[in-house]
Amino acid sequence: MTLPRIAVDAMGGDEGVRTMVDGAAMARRAHDKFKFLLVGDETRIKRALETHPGMSGASEILHCDDVISGDEQPSRAIRRAKTTSMGLAVNAVKNGDAGAAVSAGNTGALMAMSKLALRTMPGIDRPALAAIMPTLEPHDVVMLDLGANTEADARNLVQFAVMGAAYSRIVTGFEKPVVRLLNIGTEEIKGTDALRDAAARLTEATSGEGSGLAMDFAGFVESDKINRGETHVVVTDGFSGNIALKAIEGSARFVTDLLRQAFTSSLRSKIGFLVSRPATELLRHHLDPNNHNGAVFLGLNGVVVKSHGSANDKGVAQAVNVAARLLEDNLTQRISDDLAELGEATLRTNGKAAGESEPGAAA
Amino acid sequence: MTLPRIAVDAMGGDEGVRTMVDGAAMARRAHDKFKFLLVGDETRIKRALETHPGMSGASEILHCDDVISGDEQPSRAIRRAKTTSMGLAVNAVKNGDAGAAVSAGNTGALMAMSKLALRTMPGIDRPALAAIMPTLEPHDVVMLDLGANTEADARNLVQFAVMGAAYSRIVTGFEKPVVRLLNIGTEEIKGTDALRDAAARLTEATSGEGSGLAMDFAGFVESDKINRGETHVVVTDGFSGNIALKAIEGSARFVTDLLRQAFTSSLRSKIGFLVSRPATELLRHHLDPNNHNGAVFLGLNGVVVKSHGSANDKGVAQAVNVAARLLEDNLTQRISDDLAELGEATLRTNGKAAGESEPGAAA
Repeated sequence: MTLPRIAVDAMGGDEGVRTMVDGAAMARRAHDKFKFLLVGDETRIKRALETHPGMSGASEILHCDDVISGDEQPSRAIRRAKTTSMGLAVNAVKNGDAGAAVSAGNTGALMAMSKLALRTMPGIDRPALAAIMPTLEPHDVVMLDLGANTEADARNLVQFAVMGAAYSRIVTGFEKPVVRLLNIGTEEIKGTDALRDAAARLTEATSGEGSGLAMDFAGFVESDKINRGETHVVVTDGFSGNIALKAIEGSARFVTDLLRQAFTSSLRSKIGFLVSRPATELLRHHLDPNNHNGAVFLGLNGVVVKSHGSANDKGVAQAVNVAARLLEDNLTQRISDDLAELGEATLRTNGKAAGESEPGAAA
Repeated sequence: MTLPRIAVDAMGGDEGVRTMVDGAAMARRAHDKFKFLLVGDETRIKRALETHPGMSGASEILHCDDVISGDEQPSRAIRRAKTTSMGLAVNAVKNGDAGAAVSAGNTGALMAMSKLALRTMPGIDRPALAAIMPTLEPHDVVMLDLGANTEADARNLVQFAVMGAAYSRIVTGFEKPVVRLLNIGTEEIKGTDALRDAAARLTEATSGEGSGLAMDFAGFVESDKINRGETHVVVTDGFSGNIALKAIEGSARFVTDLLRQAFTSSLRSKIGFLVSRPATELLRHHLDPNNHNGAVFLGLNGVVVKSHGSANDKGVAQAVNVAARLLEDNLTQRISDDLAELGEATLRTNGKAAGESEPGAAA
């Protein structure tokens, strides 16, 4: 089959058009079958393309003058969906001109535009924002929701688990990712009603004989274990997920800031730093957010990837790579299949409650 | 005035009786006017006291055989309040035999016992668990609630802010600590209704002319900024607070684990590590949880300090120090005064809504 194009909002990032185009070109080296729709100021895009002849031949430019600013209210932004680079990139997915959109712009605006243009897929009540983070193991961990929904009920959390597992399978290659719900303790009685209810539903859906649901649900995880590598998918509501994600980022920066202070505090420590530099460079590489760039809005009729506003070309390439892999592996279809399986598994083990309340019923 | 005694649950910690007694003795060096009630196995406590003659003279032993275990359900533990070292330490505060209790035992059980025995102070609906964490600045940050209440409404959050500010004044010395509510964005429209409502109430109470409320309320803070040092008190519900605290701890450990891997990955990096050791020791000291040990249950009629289960003698000393300082500076009275001030400030600026809904009214 012909692979769908990837629409890139060339204007959204803090680092400018060139970084977006350089990043897309870098991603294309690993995914050379993909074609691109570059949305934004034609003159600047053309100038950026001059250094990438291969990319130039694989790209179409969709010109527009208008840009969504970083601090713009989502409710205002959606009114300019037809005139802005972000809006046009998302609309290209809606119209079938592209299979995925990548933007480094305003997250709230991108979420609002994507929901409005692409709608949630059958069987999903609410989309979720998922990101990948490094762990002590070679594989990354997927966490969702990170802020698309301030609150989530048990049914939402179950759907997030299905979507997160599908995403994890594609990015990590594990056939049955270990899924856990984020909680403030691991005992069954801990947390909110929604968490306990979601845990019961997921246990039921994954433990039934013959369950083909492609996840290993393993109960609760506390936020100090997110990066240990024992969990492939951490599921939570958008408020807690956002708190956890930013606390992890802030704490990592706090420690590395202290480390920098420590290493520059004396001549001796500076020398020690220079000697051990190759080792600390590995650490820096492991923690560099550009290597884990590309948050995904899951649950929509189409793939939308959010690149970090301050991502460099390598970060943008990473986000475009994520979009390419999700298209190659047909994320949306995988989620559909899993929702159907979830519905069947629940029906098998507990016919009574499943019919009306399980998301799979609608898929 | 005579300072009240500090009751120490000598049995609760993972490190045993000796660590608890050594820690209390260490704390006594800075607070030599304090006397102690050591609760637990008399033989073991006496043996531990042999190396601390000064401490021995300042201590009474309250013998008991029973101990609350680390994994015991709070609902079960409270039935043994009269026979266990934890229960007797808390009851000593209730009976006036001590002004504060320090325990390194099961947090849930300690919370349940403390609530039951000491009750919440007038004007406080729910107690909160507060901890101190390091920042990039020389002062620590206070965060609460960390898990005493899974949910919190606006009124609870306002009360937490008052209690956290009183605690921060005592441990940091700032007369008007900067207080912020933990949220997933800093714009006024972000977060839950409870957060927005609490922000409005705190703005009102601190911005009125002549407000004597001893805090500088500065809106919302995101969890990546908790450790920057720009906020002295971070206020949140117990679920989000627990998620944020553990995410910060886990992420700091993740980075230091990676660092250890990096430093031991080659001979060259090992040499670099040895050379820069004095600097990394400073970092280790700054991050050592023992230097920030001592979480406090705020809002009760008495001071209860939770020492980390795995704290060493230095950590226990830190927790006992916290108890001593809270007694010296009369935390409970400070909170009462501030609640009264909160009520007055709110009445001054907005007579209409304040009368029935402000916690200060009852103080």
